Amino acid sequence: MRHLRRSLLACTAVLGFAVLGLGCQSASANEELKKLQGDANQWVMPTGNYANHRYSTLDQINAGNVKSLHPVWSFSTGVLRGHEGGPLVIGNTMYVSTPFPNNVFALDLNDNGKIIWKYEPHQDPNVIPVMCCDTINRGVAYGNGLILMNQADATTVALDAKTGKVVWSVKNGDAAKGETMTAAPMIVKDKVYVGISGGEFGVQGRFTAYNLKDGSLAWKAYSVGPDDQIMVDPNKTTMMGKPIGANSSVSTWQGDQWKTGGGGTWGWYSYDPDLNLVYYGTGNPSTWNPTQRPGDNKWSMTIFARDADSGMAKWVYQMTPHDEWDYDGVNEMILADINVKGKPTKALVHFDRNGFAYTLNRETGELLVAEKFDPAVNWAMHVDMQTGRPQVVSQYSTQAQGEDKNSRNICPAALGSKDQQPSAFSPKTGLFYVPTNHVCMDYEPFKVSYTAGQPFVGATLSMYPPKGETNLGNFIAFDAGTGKIVWSDPEPFSVWSGALATAGDIVFYGTLDGYLKAVDIKTGKELYRFKTPSGIIGNINTYTHNGKQYVVVLSGVGGWAGIGMAAGLSEDQAGLGAVGAYKSLSNYTQLGGVLSVFGLD
Amino acid sequence: MRHLRRSLLACTAVLGFAVLGLGCQSASANEELKKLQGDANQWVMPTGNYANHRYSTLDQINAGNVKSLHPVWSFSTGVLRGHEGGPLVIGNTMYVSTPFPNNVFALDLNDNGKIIWKYEPHQDPNVIPVMCCDTINRGVAYGNGLILMNQADATTVALDAKTGKVVWSVKNGDAAKGETMTAAPMIVKDKVYVGISGGEFGVQGRFTAYNLKDGSLAWKAYSVGPDDQIMVDPNKTTMMGKPIGANSSVSTWQGDQWKTGGGGTWGWYSYDPDLNLVYYGTGNPSTWNPTQRPGDNKWSMTIFARDADSGMAKWVYQMTPHDEWDYDGVNEMILADINVKGKPTKALVHFDRNGFAYTLNRETGELLVAEKFDPAVNWAMHVDMQTGRPQVVSQYSTQAQGEDKNSRNICPAALGSKDQQPSAFSPKTGLFYVPTNHVCMDYEPFKVSYTAGQPFVGATLSMYPPKGETNLGNFIAFDAGTGKIVWSDPEPFSVWSGALATAGDIVFYGTLDGYLKAVDIKTGKELYRFKTPSGIIGNINTYTHNGKQYVVVLSGVGGWAGIGMAAGLSEDQAGLGAVGAYKSLSNYTQLGGVLSVFGLD
Repeated sequence: MRHLRRSLLACTAVLGFAVLGLGCQSASANEELKKLQGDANQWVMPTGNYANHRYSTLDQINAGNVKSLHPVWSFSTGVLRGHEGGPLVIGNTMYVSTPFPNNVFALDLNDNGKIIWKYEPHQDPNVIPVMCCDTINRGVAYGNGLILMNQADATTVALDAKTGKVVWSVKNGDAAKGETMTAAPMIVKDKVYVGISGGEFGVQGRFTAYNLKDGSLAWKAYSVGPDDQIMVDPNKTTMMGKPIGANSSVSTWQGDQWKTGGGGTWGWYSYDPDLNLVYYGTGNPSTWNPTQRPGDNKWSMTIFARDADSGMAKWVYQMTPHDEWDYDGVNEMILADINVKGKPTKALVHFDRNGFAYTLNRETGELLVAEKFDPAVNWAMHVDMQTGRPQVVSQYSTQAQGEDKNSRNICPAALGSKDQQPSAFSPKTGLFYVPTNHVCMDYEPFKVSYTAGQPFVGATLSMYPPKGETNLGNFIAFDAGTGKIVWSDPEPFSVWSGALATAGDIVFYGTLDGYLKAVDIKTGKELYRFKTPSGIIGNINTYTHNGKQYVVVLSGVGGWAGIGMAAGLSEDQAGLGAVGAYKSLSNYTQLGGVLSVFGLD
Repeated sequence: MRHLRRSLLACTAVLGFAVLGLGCQSASANEELKKLQGDANQWVMPTGNYANHRYSTLDQINAGNVKSLHPVWSFSTGVLRGHEGGPLVIGNTMYVSTPFPNNVFALDLNDNGKIIWKYEPHQDPNVIPVMCCDTINRGVAYGNGLILMNQADATTVALDAKTGKVVWSVKNGDAAKGETMTAAPMIVKDKVYVGISGGEFGVQGRFTAYNLKDGSLAWKAYSVGPDDQIMVDPNKTTMMGKPIGANSSVSTWQGDQWKTGGGGTWGWYSYDPDLNLVYYGTGNPSTWNPTQRPGDNKWSMTIFARDADSGMAKWVYQMTPHDEWDYDGVNEMILADINVKGKPTKALVHFDRNGFAYTLNRETGELLVAEKFDPAVNWAMHVDMQTGRPQVVSQYSTQAQGEDKNSRNICPAALGSKDQQPSAFSPKTGLFYVPTNHVCMDYEPFKVSYTAGQPFVGATLSMYPPKGETNLGNFIAFDAGTGKIVWSDPEPFSVWSGALATAGDIVFYGTLDGYLKAVDIKTGKELYRFKTPSGIIGNINTYTHNGKQYVVVLSGVGGWAGIGMAAGLSEDQAGLGAVGAYKSLSNYTQLGGVLSVFGLD
C-alpha cells in the first residue's frame, strides 16, 4: 500500500502537465499511453509508438525547408561513452538518460533544457567490464506518472516523473554473473516489460513483466529452457502455424547447456493493443562456438509473440537456428498494416542481424517474405518459406569449417546487416527506412568453458567492408511487402543511429562520424546535414513545443561499432572484432554525450 | 642543428596554407605574426592580437542580424573538465587544446572540423591534484610553422602545425613541487614566452623565454628574489617613475621566504612591437596567510614591462602590496591608445582581481587612473595616486583581523572582481567590455608550513554574492580613460568567459550556465542567446572561412568557479571557497567540452 500511495501521488503530480489533460488512475497506463502515443506533439516512448514506427505526422519541418534547420539549444550529459537511445518528451519536460552511470535528467523545455531534476544512481563500476559492447543505455519509459529506467547493474527503477524521486526499484539480475541491462523498458497497461543482456556471459535470457504499481514480479518468460520457464503451451504456441510441441527448447540443447544458453532480450519491444500481443526477439545462443552446442538452440534468435497480460507465447519464429555467427534476433519488430504481395496484411516486419528482412503475419506468425536487405549477405542463399530455415552456405558455416579454423569473408559480420539501431516506417509511403551495416568478417571459433561472470564467447573475429568496397554502411528504403530495396544511400561508416520518418516527406538519421542528416523520403537524396559534437548512435525523435516542431538527437560515439574509442581499445580484433573495422572513426570525432535540439526558428 | 632543420621543415610545410602567402624563415615569427594578428580573417593568437584587444573588424555578423546566428558545426573534445581559452584559426585549420590530458586537435575548416591531426600526450595523472583550480588549459600559440602548447605537467611542446609531430619539448617546471602550466604561451620574434602556476604550492614564479627554434632557454625572469633572478636594473627599472633600487624584492620578504614566495605568471601576456616591451602580471605571494609573511612581498601582484629581447624589466607596478586576499595580478594587460582624462595616451589597461581598473602609461609605467569596476569592492577605499598603494579598510584586512579570525563580507572574493577571463577593447568605441565576478567572501587565515608539492594555502574561505543581492556577476562596459562603468548587465553567475567585441557593434560573451550571448555594444542590450552544451568558461573568437564570418566558443563548465562540478566537490568551503557560491550551477548544466561554431548561413 505504501508503494501504491506513492504511485498515486506521482500520478497526481503529473496532472500538472498541461498537455496531458487525462485521468490518472493506477491501472490507466494503457489507456493513457495508447492515447499519448498518437499525439505527435510528444514523444512518449522510445520507439515512437507501440508499433515501433518511429514516424511522426508533424510536417512543419519538411522536404522544402529542412535545409534551414539548425540547433536551437543543446545539453551536455556529462558522460563520455556511447549514447544510444534518445529522449522522451512529455508535456513541457524532456527526459534523457545517459550511459553508465545511468544518470537521468528531466529538462525544462520552457527554459532551454534547464535541469528540473536529476537522478544519479551510484552503481558498482565493476559492471563496466561485463557490458559486452559499451556501457550504453537506450532510454527511459514513461507511464502512470513514472519514469522507468533500466540500470546497467540490472536494477529497474521507477522514478516520480515530477520529482525524480525513486518510487520503487527491483533487481532484475546479477551483474556479477554478467547480467546487465541496456534496453529501454516498455510499459503496457499495469505492467512494465524489461529484458536482460548477457549473451556473451552465458546468461539465460528472459523477458520479465513487473507490476507498474510497486515493481513486484508479474511473470518471467525465459528464452531457453523447460516449457514452464519459457511460458509456452506445447499445443497452442505455434511456429510457422504448427504447435511447437513439448520440450521444444530443451530438446534442442545438449544436456543442460540451455542453463547458460543465452537468448538475451536487449532489443526493442512492440505491442499490438488490438491483438493484445507483445513482440520481441531473443539474442545469440551461448557460446559463439557452434561446435560446442549442437542443436537448434531454441528459442535463441527467435521472435516471440506473447499475450501482454499472461505472458504466454502465442507464436514463435526462429530466424537463425543453431547460430554460427552471433546474429542476435533482438532487432525491433515493426507492426505495420501494409500490402504484402498485393494483399493488405497485419504485418510484423523485422530487419534481422542475419541480413534478412522478415515479413510475418503478426497475428499468426506466418512467414510471408524473407529477403536480403543488403546484397552483400552471403552466409545463406535464401530462407526456405516452408520450413522458415535459412539455407546456409557451407563455405560460410563456421561450424562446417570447424573449431580453430578461420572462416573468411562471411557477410554480414557479427554485428549484422543491422544491429539495434531502429528503423522507421512511414504509413504514408508504406516503406521502411533502415539504418544498416555493410560489414563482413573472419570468424574463428574456439572451445571455451563457462565461469559465471567471465566472458563465454569462444570466437575471435575481424571485421571489414565487403571486398572491393569501402563504405561500411547504407541507409536504405525497403519495401517489406515485396522484399526489395527501393533506394540505398551509401555511408562511409555503419549507420548506428535510429531513423525517424515524418509526414514532411523526409527521413532523418545520424552517422557515426557525427552528422545528423535529412533525406528525401522518396529518393534518398540528402537535403540537410549538420555536424553534431560527436558521432551519432542515438535515435532521432521529434515533438512540438509552443506549437513549433523540433527534432532532437543524442550524439556521443560508442556502442559496439564505436567500442574502440569508447573503451580505448586499439587491437583490430578487440571489441569482439569491431575495433579494426571502425579504426578511422577517431579521425572524425571524439567522445562526448550531447543532446542537440533542432528547429527552424 | 638537428632541431633547426626540423623547424625549417615544419616551416616549409606550413607554406601549404594558402592564406598565409608569407615568407617563412626561422626568425620571421615576429614579422609574420605582426602581419597575421592584423588579419581579421584568422585568429592567430589566443588574445586576438598582441595588444590583447579581442576585437575584430569583421562586421558581417552585426547588431542588425545577430539574432539569426546559429551553430553551423560542433566538435566534442572528448574531455569533461573545464575548458578555458579558445581555438586559433590559421588558414583553413582550427587548432584547439583541451584541459588535462591536454590533447591538441587540428581541425579542417573545409570539412566541418574533421580531424587533420591530434596530439595526445601521456602525462602523469598525479599532476591533477596539484592544479589548484581545475585542470584547465588556455590554448595554444602559433608561430613559425609551430603550434606551442603548455602541458599541465609543466612541459612546453612545439608541434609541427602541419602534422602535429613534436619538434621539440622542454621541461619548464616540476609538477612534483606543484609547478604546473595552464596559461597559453606567447610567441614574439624568435622566442616563446611561458609562465608557471603554483602560487598555492609556494612555487617561485617566473616568466621564461625559450628560443623558438629549438626550445633552448633564452632567459628566465623570476617574480620574486634577488635582482639578478628577477632581471631588474636597480637604477633603470622603475615603479611609479622612480628607480626601484637594489634588492627591491628580497628586502620586502622575511628571510628567504621569497624562495617559496609565489608570484605565478599564469595569466595572459601582451606585447607592444613599437616599444618592444612585453607585459604580464604576477600572482599572489605564498602563503595566503598574510601574518606569516610580513612585508610588501615584491614583486608579487605586480605588472611587469620587460624588454622583449633581453628580458630586463623596464618598469613594474605592484597593485596589491602584501596581499591579504589572494588578489593575483595576472589578469590581461590591454594595450590601447585612448584618451585618458582627455589626453591621447599609449595606455595599458588592467582589470585587476582586487576590483580596481588600472590605466597606466605603458611606456613609463605612470599610473593614470585607478577606479573600482564593481561598486561592491570594499577592501580598499581608493588607490593613492602618489604612491600607487591601495588604502586598505581595516575591517576587511585579514592581517589586521589576525590569524584564526574570520574576516567577513570582504568584496571581492579571492577569485576577484575579475579573474583570468579576458576583456575586450573596441578601438571603435574606445571602451572596454569586461566579464566580471560579483562575489564576496569570509576569509580565515591560519598558520601553515611549506612542504614541496603540498598545498601552501593557509586560509579557509567562503564565497557568496554581495549582501542583499543574488547575481554573482556582471558584464560591463568600462571607460578606462575616466574610470567609469558605462553600462552593466547583471548575470546570475560570474561571467567566466572571455569577451569579443566586433566592428558589427556587438560584444559576445559566454555564461557559466551555458549561454553564448551577444549584446549591443552601445547599450548592453541582449540581442542573442544560445544555450550551448555546457557552461562557458572559454573565450569567444571570430574568423572567416570562404568569405563568411564565424564565431567560435568552447563550452565545458569548470575552472575555479566551476570547480565543484569539475572535481566533484560538495563542501561549501572546498575549491578554495568557490564551491558554495556556485552550488546551483549544476541545476543548469553538466560537464563536457564542446567547440561550437556559429554563423549566419
